Amino acid sequence: MTNIEQLVDEIVKRIQPEITTNTVLVEGSGRHVHLDRATIDALFGEGYQLTKAKDLSQPGQYACKERITIASGKNSFQNVVILGPERQASQVEISATDATTLGLRVPVRESGDIAGTPGIVLINGERSVILKTGLIVAKRHIHMTEEDARRFKVTKGEIVQVKIDGYRPLIFDDVVIRVSDKFATTMHIDYDEANACGLKPGSRGEVLKKSGL
Amino acid sequence: MTNIEQLVDEIVKRIQPEITTNTVLVEGSGRHVHLDRATIDALFGEGYQLTKAKDLSQPGQYACKERITIASGKNSFQNVVILGPERQASQVEISATDATTLGLRVPVRESGDIAGTPGIVLINGERSVILKTGLIVAKRHIHMTEEDARRFKVTKGEIVQVKIDGYRPLIFDDVVIRVSDKFATTMHIDYDEANACGLKPGSRGEVLKKSGL
Repeated sequence: MTNIEQLVDEIVKRIQPEITTNTVLVEGSGRHVHLDRATIDALFGEGYQLTKAKDLSQPGQYACKERITIASGKNSFQNVVILGPERQASQVEISATDATTLGLRVPVRESGDIAGTPGIVLINGERSVILKTGLIVAKRHIHMTEEDARRFKVTKGEIVQVKIDGYRPLIFDDVVIRVSDKFATTMHIDYDEANACGLKPGSRGEVLKKSGL
Repeated sequence: MTNIEQLVDEIVKRIQPEITTNTVLVEGSGRHVHLDRATIDALFGEGYQLTKAKDLSQPGQYACKERITIASGKNSFQNVVILGPERQASQVEISATDATTLGLRVPVRESGDIAGTPGIVLINGERSVILKTGLIVAKRHIHMTEEDARRFKVTKGEIVQVKIDGYRPLIFDDVVIRVSDKFATTMHIDYDEANACGLKPGSRGEVLKKSGL
């Protein structure tokens, strides 16, 4: 190549966002709860074991047969799915639309980062638990295996953009990468986000990794 | 400039999306109805005049004091705002989340494009109207004055991207430009989209006009 051709190559490489052809499956997560042992005991009885109804995309994670009601002073949602297995701390994940319905201000947080978040009441028939904290709107994220992280050239905690070609196309910014070989590579967004991009079952997102911009 | 500097300038100009510093006010539209004369007559009585409660951002458009219920076989929303003035055809605009709550499949459409859309029941106290058609999820759009269209270098019907720096930043694609001197320059998105980007009152969006890509 001539010097000028090399220069052009170098400039193109630096300026144009590196668009990979790599895509990930995108799933919309509806409102759901994760329960700790004490909360399961209080809602279902001492030592109660939740019943697996359906495996989820993440290995070892499942939807349970049992459903509960979550309630604020303003409103409530019935028939909310419990995801197993049990967790170290109970956590309730809703959309910002749900937060408005409940009349609560709920922060956008990564799963597990529940310090300082509001609480909510959990109800199962005549039993109820006042959760002091743990109500979040989940921050959008991509679960990625170690192998896919290498293939996508991303690292744990890295922020990427993801382009969704639904019937309402958009590019999500500020998507956090989470890496573990316990994961299956899948992007999770909530129902507000799924509705905003016109997500359909099986939709895929193109991971846009910016280079040098 | 040397030849190489000119070349670099030319390449940068062609490759990098032209990022304007122009921004527009972005508003989230909640569920609302527009009513035609026959529907106002049926819901409120012959010749009834709706009462203006509050001017909206678009000149001549206003929220009315009167509220109604919209209902499907599965669910209903009460206290839905009516926007005036009256229209040639009644139209009900909801979010995709609302559509799920109502148990209805509702297409994303531009305002006024209601052929083949589902209907819904409108209720005011003991009076009700079965709307045969007119239920839509509004397609995101920017109202723009002729002057701003020239300034932004966009034309009627053009599709642009809009970058929102809310607390959940994203870039909306497929945003349609509507141009009229009857408009005030404002972008309208629904509540799913507002929640997906973390919109706050007064938020602005940067119009990204792609050049040559």
